[in-house]
Amino acid sequence: MPAMHIKLFEGRSREKKRELAEALTRETCRVLGCAPDAVDIIFEDVRKEDWATAGKLWSDRD
Amino acid sequence: MPAMHIKLFEGRSREKKRELAEALTRETCRVLGCAPDAVDIIFEDVRKEDWATAGKLWSDRD
Amino acid sequence: MPAMHIKLFEGRSREKKRELAEALTRETCRVLGCAPDAVDIIFEDVRKEDWATAGKLWSDRD
Amino acid sequence: MPAMHIKLFEGRSREKKRELAEALTRETCRVLGCAPDAVDIIFEDVRKEDWATAGKLWSDRD
Amino acid sequence: MPAMHIKLFEGRSREKKRELAEALTRETCRVLGCAPDAVDIIFEDVRKEDWATAGKLWSDRD
Amino acid sequence: MPAMHIKLFEGRSREKKRELAEALTRETCRVLGCAPDAVDIIFEDVRKEDWATAGKLWSDRD
Repeated sequence: MPAMHIKLFEGRSREKKRELAEALTRETCRVLGCAPDAVDIIFEDVRKEDWATAGKLWSDRD
Repeated sequence: MPAMHIKLFEGRSREKKRELAEALTRETCRVLGCAPDAVDIIFEDVRKEDWATAGKLWSDRD
Repeated sequence: MPAMHIKLFEGRSREKKRELAEALTRETCRVLGCAPDAVDIIFEDVRKEDWATAGKLWSDRD
Repeated sequence: MPAMHIKLFEGRSREKKRELAEALTRETCRVLGCAPDAVDIIFEDVRKEDWATAGKLWSDRD
Repeated sequence: MPAMHIKLFEGRSREKKRELAEALTRETCRVLGCAPDAVDIIFEDVRKEDWATAGKLWSDRD
Repeated sequence: MPAMHIKLFEGRSREKKRELAEALTRETCRVLGCAPDAVDIIFEDVRKEDWATAGKLWSDRD
């Protein structure tokens, strides 16, 4: 029953998310030996102005 | 001090969320014996293109 | 497909969690009109020394 | 490697988030003795209609 | 900067987590075109008595 | 109503968490202009074998 929450910068296309969901599910099932139905993935888009590393917003780095 | 984060498909009305928040808080207080003030609930809307089960986006199932 | 993550102070019995999972699932299905199979709940025990409100750990209030 | 997820009501300006990210990172490094690069912060805006305390949406309190 | 939080039933070995972290990072970089350093994964073990589907704890299904 | 979830490597003392909770709450109130009561912080200890960066568990780096 792995449940994955994946935060990533906004702007990824639906095609990329589709491909990523497929790949992560396939690899998870291969390694853990679980059924695909058991893998649940949620993508959460994050704006660069809402993500900071080392105290600096990513929107201030571009 | 239960804190609930609830991810659900986007599109639920404010009325439904209001009713759900009331019901979940009431049941939590009844079972755990805590005060209503202690129950904090956050709803997080998820687009169907951001949620995958069995490696397939829910937006691709409709 | 509601997915609930519920943080609560450690120490609740399995019986309480069982009863709470049943009640929250029943109410969610009633309000949102979803199937019970679609409701996923994860409880996360939190120690009082890991939870602070108003800048004060709950372990320091007892 | 502290990773902070901070949920707050929507409406805070980018300037406030910038200032908050700086302050939280500085304090975390001071207390824990870690390098700034190790501190990752994500802000998550929450609408008042998506946050309930004591079973009541915050949008219903205003 | 994908950050993944993965909840899974407790009991997986360190070897499985190591292999899974490698595979998920590799696939994420391949699909999204990001650097491996940007991928952060946290595993969170969940006891079967803390996970319910359809209102029933998984510890009650075994 | 900021709610902070902070994941950090296990091993920090209660004293460090107490000091960090105080400092983060103080800074949050100063920047956002909110009351201390509104700030809720949860620390989540993570084992080094459960945290990977660049596809490598932190327990394999020591």
